[in-house]
Amino acid sequence: MAIRRNVAALQPYSPGEQPADGDMIKLNTNENPYPPSPRVQEALARLDPETLRRYPDPACGALRQRIAAVHGVQASRVFVGNGSDEVLALCTRAFVEDGGDVGYFEPSYSLYPVLSDIRGAARRPLPLAAGFAWPVDSGGNWDVPDACVRSLFFFTNPNAPTGMQCPRHHVRTFCERAEGVVVLDEAYVDFAREDGLKLAAELDNVLVTRSLSKSFSLAGLRVGYAIGPARLIEALDKVKDSYNVGVVAQRLAAAALSDMEHMRRNVERIRNTRERLRGELAARGFSVCPSETNFLWVKPAEEPAKQVFDRLRANRILVRYFDGPRTADYVRISVGTDADSDALLAALDRRKA
Amino acid sequence: MAIRRNVAALQPYSPGEQPADGDMIKLNTNENPYPPSPRVQEALARLDPETLRRYPDPACGALRQRIAAVHGVQASRVFVGNGSDEVLALCTRAFVEDGGDVGYFEPSYSLYPVLSDIRGAARRPLPLAAGFAWPVDSGGNWDVPDACVRSLFFFTNPNAPTGMQCPRHHVRTFCERAEGVVVLDEAYVDFAREDGLKLAAELDNVLVTRSLSKSFSLAGLRVGYAIGPARLIEALDKVKDSYNVGVVAQRLAAAALSDMEHMRRNVERIRNTRERLRGELAARGFSVCPSETNFLWVKPAEEPAKQVFDRLRANRILVRYFDGPRTADYVRISVGTDADSDALLAALDRRKA
Repeated sequence: MAIRRNVAALQPYSPGEQPADGDMIKLNTNENPYPPSPRVQEALARLDPETLRRYPDPACGALRQRIAAVHGVQASRVFVGNGSDEVLALCTRAFVEDGGDVGYFEPSYSLYPVLSDIRGAARRPLPLAAGFAWPVDSGGNWDVPDACVRSLFFFTNPNAPTGMQCPRHHVRTFCERAEGVVVLDEAYVDFAREDGLKLAAELDNVLVTRSLSKSFSLAGLRVGYAIGPARLIEALDKVKDSYNVGVVAQRLAAAALSDMEHMRRNVERIRNTRERLRGELAARGFSVCPSETNFLWVKPAEEPAKQVFDRLRANRILVRYFDGPRTADYVRISVGTDADSDALLAALDRRKA
Repeated sequence: MAIRRNVAALQPYSPGEQPADGDMIKLNTNENPYPPSPRVQEALARLDPETLRRYPDPACGALRQRIAAVHGVQASRVFVGNGSDEVLALCTRAFVEDGGDVGYFEPSYSLYPVLSDIRGAARRPLPLAAGFAWPVDSGGNWDVPDACVRSLFFFTNPNAPTGMQCPRHHVRTFCERAEGVVVLDEAYVDFAREDGLKLAAELDNVLVTRSLSKSFSLAGLRVGYAIGPARLIEALDKVKDSYNVGVVAQRLAAAALSDMEHMRRNVERIRNTRERLRGELAARGFSVCPSETNFLWVKPAEEPAKQVFDRLRANRILVRYFDGPRTADYVRISVGTDADSDALLAALDRRKA
């Protein structure tokens, strides 16, 4: 009685640790090591607490306009959510029929099966091929059972926790094959070579989701958005909470999106650090997946991954470890500052000494 | 294809107008006319944009502790949401079985049937008696079909849009009768004589929800919470988005809740204005429901309610009008400042002149 059966049975999503101890080097949740744009600070200073008295614009009008301008699309093709996690959850309510399916790659963002369970849908995990490659041949033929692409498929690109990006021409054939809605979860795309906005513009079943948490250094603010066909955006608008994004989040997000240069400069720094760290880890015998994100998915040379995770933690460096058949030999390391990388490498090297 | 059938058919919730024109007297969405506590301003000034870089505490630990301290309950009995609207929506996912029911009084908060539709549940509206009274006799016997109280019932108390409060002993018999979870939606309770926390403490199927939007003057921030049995709170935790409340909202809400005196002073001013306005409207022949909230539910003496709404709007005063068989003869007027009341009364009187 009282608790819904599938909720009682639910294994909830387990977010990365947020230690109260500020002295830890935090390379576990893919946060940006650099502060947000100074315009965010200015918008914060300009915020009159009087404006907090009133309900926010339920449609996030000004912020939608800003996002639309950034991407050169119409505002009717933009949806704003309380973090892209909310957008993903809303997709399961807007696009999955009762008794429907939710598909996703495995391994991928571990929230998807939880969202599927909450919706009461059938989970349709689609295993990645060897080396975490996508199950697609060079001709663009996907090895995908029908059930996976029937109602909603979360296509994380670049993928997490692997960091690898599927080329757009392959993503296109996947979306064309799908019967239902394909959400291209592009939380990390600002760190990558290409993106899927063109697909969201051309195909009537494709939404791209984005986050301000990583490239814009605003994980604490909770703003994400979706871009795609107006018909899909309208459905998200119908099922969202009326005032899903507060006035502070709307204003600060708009300020951040008015300074794309700041974001791009930080992204460039992180990419440089990433490539340097990749080289250093490879030199130490780690196998490192090619990353198009702000993290590295690495398999230690000699030591078991869990032991590396524990040892780093004992050295006040947090990385992420995912238990499970496909992931247990790896750790995911967020790319921080160069100094963070140095500390990480020093801690790794300490074992040899 | 693509859009879920019941979402395609959905009539979404229609929030009150938020005019861009700042010169309007806004008595349509029950906002507080006074600013939030100065401690909110201080917390805003202390916010380092650096903290925005990091994910917020997913458990809202400090804020839960604060809420727990305010109400003298354990933190495990507190849930924090992105506005109480999010808490209500989560209840439909945590406590309503597939094929279940969602009950609510009619008229009441018009969001409930929308939440029921989104969940794909059966709507179980329970009509209020004549004069918007609850269908309960003096012996505490409720005239309630079983279907209404099977899975989830939203019991708004004080009720909106009527403003009336159901005495706690009657609420208790209702909750004892219910098979499912009863959510006592107490968004307006700080303006009332009594509350239902005792019921949430004593009964294993009762949650109380609260909002910082009205009494704390923080509608723009989006923070609400629930208090009740740890077993129900846990279920809400399982189905929420991981980071459902941002760091700014967590900090500012905690600041507001550290200054209960400020809230209580504003509530007292609003109650005084309410009683004065009630007298003035009654003197003009309006029939006015006894209000335990920050709004008045009134039936104009001569003019049709819709016409009063339109005429006030033409005079730059926004109130709320709900079309429908039980509500079409009434308007809902938020209680603003004394000056707002004077402007309202002057606009009403202008017709006579």
